This record gives sequence, C-alpha cells and structure tokens, in this order.
Amino acid sequence: MLPSNQKWFTEVNKEAGYGVSWSIESHLAHEKTDFQTIDVYQTTHWGKLMVIDGFVMLTTRDNFLYHEMMSHPTLFSHEAPRRVLIIGGGDCGTLREVLRHDSVERCTQVEIDEQVTRLAEKYFPELCERNDDPRAELIFDDGLAHIRNAEPGSLDVIIVDSTDPIGPAEGLFGPEFVADCYRALADGGIFVQQSESPLLHQHLIAGIRDNMQRAGFSDIKTLGFPQPCYPSGWWSATQARKNGQLAPADPARFHASGIQTRYYTPDVHRGALATIMP
Amino acid sequence: MLPSNQKWFTEVNKEAGYGVSWSIESHLAHEKTDFQTIDVYQTTHWGKLMVIDGFVMLTTRDNFLYHEMMSHPTLFSHEAPRRVLIIGGGDCGTLREVLRHDSVERCTQVEIDEQVTRLAEKYFPELCERNDDPRAELIFDDGLAHIRNAEPGSLDVIIVDSTDPIGPAEGLFGPEFVADCYRALADGGIFVQQSESPLLHQHLIAGIRDNMQRAGFSDIKTLGFPQPCYPSGWWSATQARKNGQLAPADPARFHASGIQTRYYTPDVHRGALATIMP
Repeated sequence: MLPSNQKWFTEVNKEAGYGVSWSIESHLAHEKTDFQTIDVYQTTHWGKLMVIDGFVMLTTRDNFLYHEMMSHPTLFSHEAPRRVLIIGGGDCGTLREVLRHDSVERCTQVEIDEQVTRLAEKYFPELCERNDDPRAELIFDDGLAHIRNAEPGSLDVIIVDSTDPIGPAEGLFGPEFVADCYRALADGGIFVQQSESPLLHQHLIAGIRDNMQRAGFSDIKTLGFPQPCYPSGWWSATQARKNGQLAPADPARFHASGIQTRYYTPDVHRGALATIMP
Repeated sequence: MLPSNQKWFTEVNKEAGYGVSWSIESHLAHEKTDFQTIDVYQTTHWGKLMVIDGFVMLTTRDNFLYHEMMSHPTLFSHEAPRRVLIIGGGDCGTLREVLRHDSVERCTQVEIDEQVTRLAEKYFPELCERNDDPRAELIFDDGLAHIRNAEPGSLDVIIVDSTDPIGPAEGLFGPEFVADCYRALADGGIFVQQSESPLLHQHLIAGIRDNMQRAGFSDIKTLGFPQPCYPSGWWSATQARKNGQLAPADPARFHASGIQTRYYTPDVHRGALATIMP
C-alpha cells in the first residue's frame, strides 16, 4: 500500500499488471491542449515530472538516460551528421544532445503540441538551453505531414522522440510514415525511433522492425538502456540505416568531440547494440 | 491511482519517494522464519513474485537479467573459475547460472534462511533445476561466519547475492566481511556483490567500493544492468579482483562455452563495465 499521509502520482500499465508511483509535493500545471492533457508535478525526490494523458514523459532526475541514448548512438554511428530532424521531442532534451555535435548544421524539431515545449521551457529549462542555438529550428506542426513533404534525400538523421503509440503519436508507428522517412533520408542516413520496453513490448518492437525492413532499410538494430521512469525501467530505441551498417562509435571520435555524458560511452553503445531481441 | 477492482502488491521506497506495484491473483505463501518474513504471490503478468520483509526479491518474468549479470561477467572475467562460493542466493538462480560453466568444480551456496530455498523449489522450480548437480553444495548457515572460517586462498570467485543492506544482510556490506572475502580468495580471485541502483543508491555504492579498496583489491568495477523489479529498474553489481584486472569476456570463450543467455553477451559485459559512477 502507498502511505496515505503522502500524495502520489501513479501510472498504471494495465496490459502489464504493473504500476509506478511518485510522491508529489505539488501539482504545478494542468493543461488541456488541442491534442492531449499535460500535467507537471513537483515530486519529493525526482525533481519535476511531466505527464501526458496519464503517461509519464520525463522526470528531472533520470531523463539524461533517454536523451543521451536517443541521440548519441545515432549521431556517432553516422560519419558526418549535418541535417537532423526530430519528430516530437517537445521537451527539447534530445535537441540539446544533438546540438552538442559540432558537425550538425541544422536540427529541425517538429512537435505537434507547442504547449509541451512551453511547459518544458518553464519547468525543465536545463533541457531547453540550446533552443536559441542558431542551428535549431522549432516547428509546431504535424510530423506526418512534415515528413511527407520533405525533399527526398535531404536528411542525414531522423529521430522519432514520440509518446506511446496511442493518441497523437499513433501514425508515427505506421508503415507509411517509416516509408516517408526512408525517402527523406540521404544515402547512409539513419532513422531512430523510441521503441518501448524490451521486456513488456516485444510485439510492438517486432512491428517497428518489420516496418523498417519493408521500407527498405539495410541494417536494423534495437538498443536497450535503463530508463527508470518508463514502465519496467528498461527501454529501447530502434535504429535503421539506409544503405550501410550501423556501428558503435569510434572511441577516438567520441573523445575528440568533448561531449560530456552521464551514461553514454562508446562501450555502452556497443553493449546496447548487443541487446538480444526475443 | 491503482484501480481498486484489482489486488495489488506495492513496494514503497520511502527514501526515493517511489513505489512499484504488481497486480496480484493470489497470495501463495506467507512464512515467518527465524530471520524474516517471506511472501510469495501469483501476479497477473509477471509470474510468481517473492517478497522478503516487504521488499521484492524476484519475479518469474525478469529474474534472468539479475541472475545472468551476477554470474557471467565474473566467471568469464576469471581465467578458470573452479571454486565458487555464493553468499545468500537462496532462490538458486545464481547457482544455476554458475553451474553452466564447465570449469566450475564446486559451487557452495551459503544461505542463512533455508525457507527461501524451500519456497523457491516450490514456486520457482526452474531456478532450482541445478540444485542436484553433484558440484552444488547447499549450506544453510551464516555467511559471515562461513567466510571467517574459510581457508585462505581457497576460492576463485565469491558472489554476494544478498537482500538489501538492512536486516540479516547488513553485515555483508561491512568492511570486516569484505576483508574476510579478500583473504579467502586465491590470487586473481574475484569478489562480486549486488550493489543496488546506480540512480538511487550512489552513496551505498561508494561505500561498497571503499570497503573493497581498503581490503586491498586491485581493480574495482561497478556494472549496471536493467532489473525491472528492483527500485528504479536499473541495478548494479560491483566486482573486485585480488591482483590483476577485470576484463570483459573473450567472445571466442563465450561462444565455445555454449551457454545460452537472454541478456548477457560479451558486448553487454563490456558495456556494463563502462557504467559511469557519479
């Protein structure tokens, strides 16, 4: 039983018979937008907590794991990522990590719900510290339409940093979207998508990999990593490359980049690539 | 809120303002032993769940992660592990993994509470399938006394597969015990201890590493891995070697061993060794 002398926010995952609760000091924001309901809480031990439609998006304490693993394994796997597109990612934490790479000339973020970014600016300012970088372009629009209209071969990296595959993000897990991403990537380009829990969502991961295969990607890898605030605490990103192979980072290049991380290293990258898919 | 039309078992971690809940079909066992209270539940989605003094020990669904990572990184880091001691480990899952290594001539398990093993035999029989191996020796006794009386230099590997550092396991996190383990190990021997969450228990991990350093171990490494049923879902084991270095597995040796794993691989091992300690 959760102690009743304390307020709690609980995320219940009915399909996994599992729930996670955080003790809460205060409810900082509650907004109904055109797309979803967004809440921000002050927790007692995890900093701020953002919730969309009842599902935890991030906490101050542990988001570094997700944001590093959604960006660095892909950018260090590409020889020279210059043109990067993020679909979703409204908290701007992935954008911040991408812009740590000097090779990046432009990082466009297409988030459907502007309020996610406005609330992140207010409650997670550390994640938004690169939003004013001249290489950053923040667009609030439908990612599906954006990628449909993208010029073929115009991108080096596409990162799908989305909510779960229900609600506004559902189309981001469909085969048409993945085929559009394939078309928009240049030769050697890499597509990466958050792909839920290797323990709880094996069927979904299989579907994501199947979409990638059908779209024509030549190498597909699912990378596991810890992510405490998501169900099971074990999460994944699935990468797909348009011609060519996915590879762990060259340690010399990582060290020369000067990028400071709290979780990601070239060896962690290699280990994540070894995640066994059932 | 947890749905009230369903029974739940909740573990609350007050120090982290955090709780995890599993939906429960039935309460299979409740035993008060001389040492602790043990409960076993049938969950709806995670198989069986064993709880000691209110803290989750293991579930059927995810224990493979912990048991593989408590055994293989250490056994594959040692050139020829013949004599292995497990302190704790009453569910016998670590014992099963250790005995997959053909080089092991004897694996002694010293569990203080025989009822843990008796309940594991009944509710987690798959973990106990090697208990009748002629190389296995199951002793129900105090691990602290056992190691104090061990012949110096008589062991190649010591695995501390204990509960949290409160209650019966407290002494297993003290400097005297670690010094006794150092003495009992042969040259090149490896000591490994479950060391809680890299996110939530950094202070504890620092203490464990400090004990190892003071005992005279020459190389110390903390390996992170996902473990959904423990707080934060991100767990660790800390290894220490008596003379010599800790190294990831030789892939050729791993493949030649024929050991089938669901998480561990030599690359996962290398990645775990790269865990950044704050």
